[in-house]
Amino acid sequence: MTNTSNDLEQVAGNGLLHRRLFLTQGAALLGGAALLAARPAGADALAIADWTKTPGAGPSEYSDRSRFEAHVKRVPSIVPGTIGTGSSRTPLESLEGIITPNSLHFERHHNGVPDIDPDQHQLLIHGLVERPLLFDMNTLSRYPLVSRIQFLECAGNSAVLNSPEPAQQSAGGLHGLVSCSEWTGVPLAILLEEAGVQPEGRWLLAEGADAAAMSRSVPMAKALDDAIVAIYQNGERLRPANGYPMRLFLPGYEGNMHVKWLRRLKVTSEPTMTKDETSKYSDLQSDGRSLLFTFPMEVKSVITSPSGGLKMQGPGLYQISGLAWSGSGRIQRIEVSADGGQTWGEAALSEPVLSMAFTRFRMAWRWNGGPAVLQSRATDNNGVVQPTRTALLAERGAQFRYHYNAIQSWNVSAAGEVTNVYA
Amino acid sequence: MTNTSNDLEQVAGNGLLHRRLFLTQGAALLGGAALLAARPAGADALAIADWTKTPGAGPSEYSDRSRFEAHVKRVPSIVPGTIGTGSSRTPLESLEGIITPNSLHFERHHNGVPDIDPDQHQLLIHGLVERPLLFDMNTLSRYPLVSRIQFLECAGNSAVLNSPEPAQQSAGGLHGLVSCSEWTGVPLAILLEEAGVQPEGRWLLAEGADAAAMSRSVPMAKALDDAIVAIYQNGERLRPANGYPMRLFLPGYEGNMHVKWLRRLKVTSEPTMTKDETSKYSDLQSDGRSLLFTFPMEVKSVITSPSGGLKMQGPGLYQISGLAWSGSGRIQRIEVSADGGQTWGEAALSEPVLSMAFTRFRMAWRWNGGPAVLQSRATDNNGVVQPTRTALLAERGAQFRYHYNAIQSWNVSAAGEVTNVYA
Repeated sequence: MTNTSNDLEQVAGNGLLHRRLFLTQGAALLGGAALLAARPAGADALAIADWTKTPGAGPSEYSDRSRFEAHVKRVPSIVPGTIGTGSSRTPLESLEGIITPNSLHFERHHNGVPDIDPDQHQLLIHGLVERPLLFDMNTLSRYPLVSRIQFLECAGNSAVLNSPEPAQQSAGGLHGLVSCSEWTGVPLAILLEEAGVQPEGRWLLAEGADAAAMSRSVPMAKALDDAIVAIYQNGERLRPANGYPMRLFLPGYEGNMHVKWLRRLKVTSEPTMTKDETSKYSDLQSDGRSLLFTFPMEVKSVITSPSGGLKMQGPGLYQISGLAWSGSGRIQRIEVSADGGQTWGEAALSEPVLSMAFTRFRMAWRWNGGPAVLQSRATDNNGVVQPTRTALLAERGAQFRYHYNAIQSWNVSAAGEVTNVYA
Repeated sequence: MTNTSNDLEQVAGNGLLHRRLFLTQGAALLGGAALLAARPAGADALAIADWTKTPGAGPSEYSDRSRFEAHVKRVPSIVPGTIGTGSSRTPLESLEGIITPNSLHFERHHNGVPDIDPDQHQLLIHGLVERPLLFDMNTLSRYPLVSRIQFLECAGNSAVLNSPEPAQQSAGGLHGLVSCSEWTGVPLAILLEEAGVQPEGRWLLAEGADAAAMSRSVPMAKALDDAIVAIYQNGERLRPANGYPMRLFLPGYEGNMHVKWLRRLKVTSEPTMTKDETSKYSDLQSDGRSLLFTFPMEVKSVITSPSGGLKMQGPGLYQISGLAWSGSGRIQRIEVSADGGQTWGEAALSEPVLSMAFTRFRMAWRWNGGPAVLQSRATDNNGVVQPTRTALLAERGAQFRYHYNAIQSWNVSAAGEVTNVYA
């Protein structure tokens, strides 16, 4: 088996190949040359496995995954001294495509996951409205629904990358406070119109029914634009960890504003300045001042394969695969570098490319067995380009904790070990 | 609370309203009129629930759904005398959007679900090829991947609707042998090119590693067009019931051809005429002859809400929601009738509208409390229109079991009960 696919044009340094391999399904591109190390086989090569010899299990009501996949999991991190305060991260390095399965959606809780009986839960809309209204699940379910595939990212995602030394974790361990689902819910504009927002109502206070009473202020303009009260996630009802039976969903905005277990929306004239938007989720700047209300998540990308902790299987052709997203629109372009940002080639974007959703990008790479630094750089449809870490720190200082969106660098050693580096 | 939204223009008989309610999020359409029966409330209306008073559960490795959702399940049907032969149907009436969660994807097994160790599983490509090849999971995972959101429908879906009396089941019970997922896999064209298909290789035999050795013949043209060897489903590895660790996926084609637990692809000059394409999955016609190799699933739709077994909550505004799909392309248009097909109005299609995927449609309906027959009629981008049951039976005869795609009729009684009728 040889690696002689010279017809795969190199488009950037250190072995990056043209994306047409992914755009045309590769047919007629290889010219009969071997692509990878599939083993030659005789027709008698395939033994009959034991599982082919006996009937298997029957259909079930609600199935689980294979026992051989149990290693794919989120790693919970709980604040010491608390029961349910903490987070768990999506194992991005183990997933493909753009949908995050519900069981692996990231979590971030400020006082744990309440066990809510949906028949007892209500949503109150009050404050500066003509008609304060109470919605139960039955009522809410009769309103018009909309569905959208969109990402959700915690404002604190990737924050560890602001530390002086690069943490040695997986792609999910570093960047896994982001996931992407199909969310279905009722447009908030319809509920607010029914309540009748008074002219001075320019903000909302959104409050959760968890023991943290997680609360955030939301501009009325966003509420009337594309906000929904979400009740379904990837087809089924929300998971408890994601706000069952209802949560606010604010496309593109930082995660904690999408208030889970939503119980109250109060129309106000000014932001409420809750604990969750003053003591936390405000962005400390290098001059000691804090930015408040930095809502949209920035344009960002990360290579998920190869990524931290994975091991290359020797020189040859590899697939670079990753995710990109922007809280302000669609992903326009992903560039990939194998030489630490000296040269860049354009990656293939997998359809559908949707606004404020994960976009999956892929690129072919012929690793020559030498040192390499892999990077991806996203550009959204507003022309905003993901910054380097150096540029981001120069702008934001060394103390900021939220909205870290710099280019991720993965070092590939000659031994094939992949590590997190600052490059 | 009154229902006086006269500004919602009626577009078809018996209360069907213009779809712009869904296209504009409804803002400024209601003119301050009450849409639905949310209850007026004082600011003190919301009691503090017990679950707000104590910390909740912490984050977890792989989370489950709420215990209050346990009633949403597939109903397994097992062939008497067998262990694992049978099916389970997706509860379409309980889901929203277009993604089917993996735990609720329909199942159809011909001899149960094998418990495959992925490290022991191999795929052989042989027959009329230059280089017979063996692929294990490690090898396969290095080939270029593509991801697509696409439906999968069993050829036998909805077959009970060919019986003389209308079966009284839910939307899922009648039509739930169809689901939609994001599938990620390796283009078969690339694997076949690496093996080197000989000029006379015009068909493939695909064989599964289950105890049924489920086998189907696939035209080479389809294999080289858009077929993939799928290894991920909605982001994570395939579920065992869907072919873990690998299955064939043939966009738009009847379900059983997407051979699960794929172990062998043999390139042949003619179809193999396996038991699974001669004694079954061939279409008996009214003249006594059978059609073989009827591959693409037809254009089809079903209203999932309201639907069989559900109960209306009294006259007023409702949301009609449903799914449409076509094995030959995109859904172009969905029309809905509330008067048994006398008049039709156009439904709103939820983005994204993708080729060979579920498309979610919705329409507002003001039910006046009188009798109604709800129907949906899909048209795909080839201009093919879903037929009435009468037309389909006239064409196909009374004995056919596969590829039933007629318009579904739901009767709404004055008491608000929804039943399956032939209309």
